[in-house]
Amino acid sequence: MPQYTAPLTDMQFLLHDWLKLEDHYSSLGLQDFDKDLVNEILSQGAKFAEQAIAPLNREGDEQSCKLENGKVTTPDGFAEAYHEYIANGWNAMLGNPEYDGQDLPHTMAVPVQEMLCSANVSWRLISMLTESAVLAINKHGDQALKDTYLRKLISGEWTGTMCLTEPQAGTDLSLLSTKAEPQEDGSYKITGNKIFISGGDQEWTDNIIHLVLARLPDAPAGVKGISLFAVPKKMVLENGELGAENSLSVGSLEKKMGIKACPTCVMNFDQATGFIVGAPHKGLACMFTMMNDARFQVGLQGLGIAEGSFQGALAYARDRLQSRAPQGVQNPEGKADPIMAHPDVRKMLLTQKSLTEGCRALSFLYASQMDIEKSADDEASKQAAANVVAFLTPIAKGFMTDVGQEVSSLGVQVFGGHGFIREWGMEQYMRDSRITQLYEGTNGIQAADLIGRKLSRDNGDMLNDTYQVFDKMVADIADPKGLEKAKSILEEWYQTSLQVKQQSAVNVAGAAYDYMNFSAYSLLGILWLSMADKASQNENPSIQQGKKATSDFYIKRMLPRKDAFKVNLLEDANDLIDVADNLFDYQ
Amino acid sequence: MPQYTAPLTDMQFLLHDWLKLEDHYSSLGLQDFDKDLVNEILSQGAKFAEQAIAPLNREGDEQSCKLENGKVTTPDGFAEAYHEYIANGWNAMLGNPEYDGQDLPHTMAVPVQEMLCSANVSWRLISMLTESAVLAINKHGDQALKDTYLRKLISGEWTGTMCLTEPQAGTDLSLLSTKAEPQEDGSYKITGNKIFISGGDQEWTDNIIHLVLARLPDAPAGVKGISLFAVPKKMVLENGELGAENSLSVGSLEKKMGIKACPTCVMNFDQATGFIVGAPHKGLACMFTMMNDARFQVGLQGLGIAEGSFQGALAYARDRLQSRAPQGVQNPEGKADPIMAHPDVRKMLLTQKSLTEGCRALSFLYASQMDIEKSADDEASKQAAANVVAFLTPIAKGFMTDVGQEVSSLGVQVFGGHGFIREWGMEQYMRDSRITQLYEGTNGIQAADLIGRKLSRDNGDMLNDTYQVFDKMVADIADPKGLEKAKSILEEWYQTSLQVKQQSAVNVAGAAYDYMNFSAYSLLGILWLSMADKASQNENPSIQQGKKATSDFYIKRMLPRKDAFKVNLLEDANDLIDVADNLFDYQ
Repeated sequence: MPQYTAPLTDMQFLLHDWLKLEDHYSSLGLQDFDKDLVNEILSQGAKFAEQAIAPLNREGDEQSCKLENGKVTTPDGFAEAYHEYIANGWNAMLGNPEYDGQDLPHTMAVPVQEMLCSANVSWRLISMLTESAVLAINKHGDQALKDTYLRKLISGEWTGTMCLTEPQAGTDLSLLSTKAEPQEDGSYKITGNKIFISGGDQEWTDNIIHLVLARLPDAPAGVKGISLFAVPKKMVLENGELGAENSLSVGSLEKKMGIKACPTCVMNFDQATGFIVGAPHKGLACMFTMMNDARFQVGLQGLGIAEGSFQGALAYARDRLQSRAPQGVQNPEGKADPIMAHPDVRKMLLTQKSLTEGCRALSFLYASQMDIEKSADDEASKQAAANVVAFLTPIAKGFMTDVGQEVSSLGVQVFGGHGFIREWGMEQYMRDSRITQLYEGTNGIQAADLIGRKLSRDNGDMLNDTYQVFDKMVADIADPKGLEKAKSILEEWYQTSLQVKQQSAVNVAGAAYDYMNFSAYSLLGILWLSMADKASQNENPSIQQGKKATSDFYIKRMLPRKDAFKVNLLEDANDLIDVADNLFDYQ
Repeated sequence: MPQYTAPLTDMQFLLHDWLKLEDHYSSLGLQDFDKDLVNEILSQGAKFAEQAIAPLNREGDEQSCKLENGKVTTPDGFAEAYHEYIANGWNAMLGNPEYDGQDLPHTMAVPVQEMLCSANVSWRLISMLTESAVLAINKHGDQALKDTYLRKLISGEWTGTMCLTEPQAGTDLSLLSTKAEPQEDGSYKITGNKIFISGGDQEWTDNIIHLVLARLPDAPAGVKGISLFAVPKKMVLENGELGAENSLSVGSLEKKMGIKACPTCVMNFDQATGFIVGAPHKGLACMFTMMNDARFQVGLQGLGIAEGSFQGALAYARDRLQSRAPQGVQNPEGKADPIMAHPDVRKMLLTQKSLTEGCRALSFLYASQMDIEKSADDEASKQAAANVVAFLTPIAKGFMTDVGQEVSSLGVQVFGGHGFIREWGMEQYMRDSRITQLYEGTNGIQAADLIGRKLSRDNGDMLNDTYQVFDKMVADIADPKGLEKAKSILEEWYQTSLQVKQQSAVNVAGAAYDYMNFSAYSLLGILWLSMADKASQNENPSIQQGKKATSDFYIKRMLPRKDAFKVNLLEDANDLIDVADNLFDYQ
């Protein structure tokens, strides 16, 4: 496995020099979080990611998980690393302080979350889902539920899962059939089968709290008849101690392409006792509280894996000697030049770098908007930030995971045949990242969410608030050429967005994926021009010159990709509909 | 695993109606090969692929290969299927008739070869490499070598391998260090280690003939000092029977991302007896005889896997019910519509279909040029066809394998989360196809070969002869709009090619990958317009309408991809070179 080193120089540039974190925190009344504290958290997070979990990643893939006598075990070292993680308080970073959470700003947590994903995404997944479960219970649970579960979920003493999918109900949750029967004591009996449950069981903790979507007996059909339930693996007694096992079990473990060290369980609930989260039939809203968080976090998985793969490819390209470079001998002492000297390899590396760092800027910007949504002292600012977060969520999930796949595939390519061999670890990045394009809503669903809901609802407020954030960023570019280019990208994107909004439902559905990509490549262009501009005053010459060179590369070589997406998204989509089904294979 | 059904309707359309095979054969003096015979071969090939090897594909991936006591075994059923294959004469399709080969036209063999790749690419690899070894010995070996080895390699009683790569010498064969010491009897002692040797050992046959690149003691440095040797696993006695084991062994089996059912061996040659193929120090030319064949065949692997994945995705999309389509309810009896009704899914399927069928047209066109190269009665025609084959080889290898990866990834995406689960077989296509972008020269090397050698050498003859073939195809389009569009694509491609030819070495190296893609997307556009035109007169309405609809889709939605590549390939590449190495990670 490549040696992972957290990209602290880039992260600190983005946080302090680009996002101007101290001003940001001051404006939100969060003066306690100063630069030193941020850097200390980053540095401790880096140490944990690099030393505790990255070394388990490769072997974890080979060992994978086991199900024996109904109990799941994860690979060697995974449980110990988790115990170190929670002992050091990492699980509580974002938690509600009433339940011993640390209530850190998102801009402090997100860089650490990215590092965990780079180091070992299989290991990370369980704590990630626990954070999402915490959000749902914190926002929608009643007092008793919060008092019973939150403290231990925030500390990480227990973990949480998200039990949504059923064999016949994936994207379309209206089809789900798990039943919840009300009991006299106010609890419910949950019966049904759920699939694809990450961390459905593990040996890390004494208890697991499953958040399960199910239907009440009087539920309306469709998604308006879904409710959410907290279903503990072991019952929690009034004194907080653990009681009997609940009637639920792991049916089997899935054999998967990647994230093999994370147990993906088929879960059987057989009259299991559960407690409702939120109001009856309002489960979809509770689910989306979890889901939106999970979608951004999955985007971070894409970013984290991209970073890991880029580091591996870069180290190998510096080391591996093959052939002479066309610009002249670079390594006269050796029989060949490092492959990094070859223009085609450099282009692959710069593609990896410009996409990865562009996505990092996007995710840190997203984190800063989450900070504003949470901590601003006026409702208008909060609402605007919430709108930006909502608009950017499908892009962060859909685009950053596509980037994870593209960048990790380039990482394999830089290694040549060795990239295909498991011991080098490069192909694992590809296999691990492939799930991120599928789970928590396929990227097609992200694109549909962006174009169908985010672009159009509330009179376009989500689009317009996002435009405002980028417009402000553009106006802040000092370099006149950069400013002009960024302006033209922004205006083209905004005008195209308005044009798409007016299309028919079929055209919108046909344009969805292209619009997501067109938007992402455009917005990344603005992020790059802004980063290069801020870097021009940086005291670190490698940031100053490196950001400029990578921005130039992105604008010149990556940004033109948006045009093919634009051609497509403005097309009438009836060509897609009008091809008769039987023409697809010449029956 | 999806059920594979050979795409006979499309293949027969391409061969008979598009390529007009009977005219083609007549013009080459191959009248014996009529339509009925072609269809019979296709139908028997389909039966073998569908029934004998496709059913072994999924389980083969799970079992993978074993090395015990120095001997390799492949998964259950693989050896038996191979014995059926050779018993039915498939291995001899293209072989020299002097050694009992059937000497079939390439246009008859290529469709069957594609089917083998769709059905089970791990299984196919060994017979593919044997065919390449046959070519090298047939073309470059002396009489004794041919008499000793060809008959059994053509029948398939023995298999062949290609032993080129060493740990320090992959792309750059000038670095290879395996030694060949001449012996008094005219043989050589071969000593060295080779890696990534597909089929380095197996239990299918009594003997294996390794074709090994090595250096003679007096060899000049670099690639001009490489010679090729035939090194049998077991010595062949004068009476043709097998004698002692040669001193070579399998060091280990690689653990890989995919093609797990094909044994990828580290081979140790320890004073092994070998026989020179061709002249001393002229091994590179002999190697390229094998390699060029293997490159096209690897392209067919990309195509074959794309077809397999498309079939799986299409069947699933027809069957899987989720959500309602935006154009209105399609399946009123069910609770949801088939996902095939959703525009985004249709777009994925049409992307798969237009790329797969476009690549099939490219590969059949390539096969027809191989026929002309082999059988034309005038040297000028032979040479022109050889030039076209040479020009198209890197495109067929590089582009068709990139297509294999894109299409198989779309196949996973259509399946949603189930695509990630091994038992469905869709992720295996992705893992199996990923090697095709790496072996027999990475796709970056293909691109460099296309732009650096094929485009420029011999006064551009290879480019110009390829242009002629496509120009003739364009002129043959009856539909005026199709004709005009095809003309404009061809001229843009040709003019851009001439422009690229004049660039500096650095710019050419920087433009390579983009030029390969720009060329492939352009040429596929012409192939699609030509196919749609020929299909317009077809008696099968699903071919008539399906080819037209898919051509429209390709021209409208896929062809615009070429423009981003064009922007890139015309750029000055000094931006790639000028970024200092230490700026890549902000050291």
